[in-house]
Amino acid sequence: MQFSEIIKKQIDADTRRGFPTSFENDRERQDQLMRDLVGLVGEIGEFADLLKKVGLVLSTPGYSGPSLAEAAPQLRLELADVAIYLFRLSTILEGDLENDVLQKMKINDKRYQYLER
Amino acid sequence: MQFSEIIKKQIDADTRRGFPTSFENDRERQDQLMRDLVGLVGEIGEFADLLKKVGLVLSTPGYSGPSLAEAAPQLRLELADVAIYLFRLSTILEGDLENDVLQKMKINDKRYQYLER
Amino acid sequence: MQFSEIIKKQIDADTRRGFPTSFENDRERQDQLMRDLVGLVGEIGEFADLLKKVGLVLSTPGYSGPSLAEAAPQLRLELADVAIYLFRLSTILEGDLENDVLQKMKINDKRYQYLER
Amino acid sequence: MQFSEIIKKQIDADTRRGFPTSFENDRERQDQLMRDLVGLVGEIGEFADLLKKVGLVLSTPGYSGPSLAEAAPQLRLELADVAIYLFRLSTILEGDLENDVLQKMKINDKRYQYLER
Repeated sequence: MQFSEIIKKQIDADTRRGFPTSFENDRERQDQLMRDLVGLVGEIGEFADLLKKVGLVLSTPGYSGPSLAEAAPQLRLELADVAIYLFRLSTILEGDLENDVLQKMKINDKRYQYLER
Repeated sequence: MQFSEIIKKQIDADTRRGFPTSFENDRERQDQLMRDLVGLVGEIGEFADLLKKVGLVLSTPGYSGPSLAEAAPQLRLELADVAIYLFRLSTILEGDLENDVLQKMKINDKRYQYLER
Repeated sequence: MQFSEIIKKQIDADTRRGFPTSFENDRERQDQLMRDLVGLVGEIGEFADLLKKVGLVLSTPGYSGPSLAEAAPQLRLELADVAIYLFRLSTILEGDLENDVLQKMKINDKRYQYLER
Repeated sequence: MQFSEIIKKQIDADTRRGFPTSFENDRERQDQLMRDLVGLVGEIGEFADLLKKVGLVLSTPGYSGPSLAEAAPQLRLELADVAIYLFRLSTILEGDLENDVLQKMKINDKRYQYLER
């Protein structure tokens, strides 16, 4: 599926649910960016917390928790949540995430040229 | 462009540069997930720091910093960086981010049904 | 209680539990900093997630979740968790957090001089 | 220095600079918690970004960046910044961070009893 189409699908659903992405002024726009950033941080935190437990199982004798294989499906869903917040933040900023990612990849192509084998 | 194709493009470039995404055992896989999570947190931090400054301009008399319009291009590039780390984390977990996002959207469709207008 | 004494109390307990803060080389030290940073991000995520829900109650008609008064005790415990990771990170870096905070306050005294009333 | 005294010193300075910590209603209180959380995330991001670079030097042949010893003083100042935001968040929640940390330590004493040697 086209990247831009997936993003549009999410934003359409958000709009129907009353989670706005377009605003009348910068004060409201900035407030919503703050809220969605906080949402994104929450999802990253869930990912981090689960990954930490996987790591403790590997490094601390006697610590009980999930293996990486057991945690992977949940970890992947947390990443999907992060992606959804990313779509929202980009849209509020009137960005085109597909385009912005491709542009950033080009910048990195030059920046990391010296590491290419 | 297809979402999965963009992700593949990034992972191919990373592989050429010596930033690995495939591993022999869970210990190495977990270590790399940690490192990429830390990278992602760094990018989110840059986004947060710039957004904070935009907010202070709006709320604190006399504080000097960028307007939202001035900061937006940089904010969008930070989001692109976050996306790139997300592609890496998903790949290390042998996930399919396009599929995982679409699956999560379906879960949210049910969960937020009661908010639909 | 002295700030430095509280930190020492935490590190002593960690040591008894096998959560190390001293290392033989930079590779191990860096790995542990990564792990504790991930732990800290997990705690901040829990704080963010709960704060987000409080915000949605205030802004989204029909959204069900806790009030700020209901969430406050849990939010405060999450901050305590963040503080504990901070003590660990500072100790691994052979820092003196009390001293470092006081030094940073002095830097801020100059930096924000122009905002003083 | 007493932990509570250090916190008070910071909050007094913030008040003089127009960075508020007390509010008339939950809407304003929640907004400020969001803003300070975003500030805290920014500082953690700076810490993460620098720590990532230290890690890349250790793991990626040819990558140029600081050693842990070179980065440590800056990393410690970032932690001080995180601590300062923590003091603010706790105060806005009408918490007593010293007390909350000591309470959380007691909870952990029970929780991690099984790991004690």
